[in-house]
Amino acid sequence: MPKTLLILAHPNIKESIGNRIISEILIRDPQVEIRHLDQLYPDFKIDIKAEQQAMLRADLIIFQYPLFWYSTPAVLKEWIDQVFEYGFAFGRDAKLTGKKVVASFTMGSSDKDYPAEVIEKITFPFQGMAKYCNMEYLGEIYSNDINNYKPGAGEKAAEIAKTHAEKLIALIHP
Amino acid sequence: MPKTLLILAHPNIKESIGNRIISEILIRDPQVEIRHLDQLYPDFKIDIKAEQQAMLRADLIIFQYPLFWYSTPAVLKEWIDQVFEYGFAFGRDAKLTGKKVVASFTMGSSDKDYPAEVIEKITFPFQGMAKYCNMEYLGEIYSNDINNYKPGAGEKAAEIAKTHAEKLIALIHP
Repeated sequence: MPKTLLILAHPNIKESIGNRIISEILIRDPQVEIRHLDQLYPDFKIDIKAEQQAMLRADLIIFQYPLFWYSTPAVLKEWIDQVFEYGFAFGRDAKLTGKKVVASFTMGSSDKDYPAEVIEKITFPFQGMAKYCNMEYLGEIYSNDINNYKPGAGEKAAEIAKTHAEKLIALIHP
Repeated sequence: MPKTLLILAHPNIKESIGNRIISEILIRDPQVEIRHLDQLYPDFKIDIKAEQQAMLRADLIIFQYPLFWYSTPAVLKEWIDQVFEYGFAFGRDAKLTGKKVVASFTMGSSDKDYPAEVIEKITFPFQGMAKYCNMEYLGEIYSNDINNYKPGAGEKAAEIAKTHAEKLIALIHP
């Protein structure tokens, strides 16, 4: 079973439905180490060595986040920009070869706004990064309608989040 | 002539070739207001009201940055996530309708790695954001080979950056 690193980015996890439920389910799995970036780095000053060590311990890295403006929350982008440095992620002595990557994200809007070609564009940075670092991009797991906009929407979102978490668990325990 | 807001993101502008030269040329233009996010917000704590006021003053918003991992630097993403809020950028009383947007970025690598379909994916978040906010995405202006990897590369990059700046000036003064 792959050792799994869940890199969680959410600026307000207590009020989150999707990312909170997903991470609460995943944290029970002994194969999974969770690092919540907003909690670790409220000032965006990433501990590069600690994060690189966490990556080295993992076979599978799951990036877990709510989609913000067709991309990741900024703290996750800063994490990538700092941690994926020359000599670690690529170039001479690159250390990530063969590790697996999954983009796992939630969206408040409905799936009709996100046809396959949009998902392809949204996830391209992870695809490109994985390729550049000789990692294997396993694809994306994503859920729509994760919101609390209308009465009852929160309950529905919670169910969707549980299903989302089950898909991740199935990936970790095939 | 459109009032232009140049939102500049570069974590180390003094050692930059492309973004430094481009912004040095643009700053001489009286139509242009430059806001250098890394200088304004080293702690990533965006002054939302100040940034929204700057946007309201502008007809054309140019996002100027080096491409990092197929996306923007994190501080620019944080700026977008904070500034483009409900009631300002979209929803009731949205205030950005009709403003024009350009993605302007530099890359260290050669253009062979970036065919049109990759540029389309890289710029999709700006396209999607503009559409969602009833802004007009004018397209992207980008330059490859902005690096200092080999002897002489810096001089070549400086020339490319000047040409890049001229394209932006031509957009501001059609």
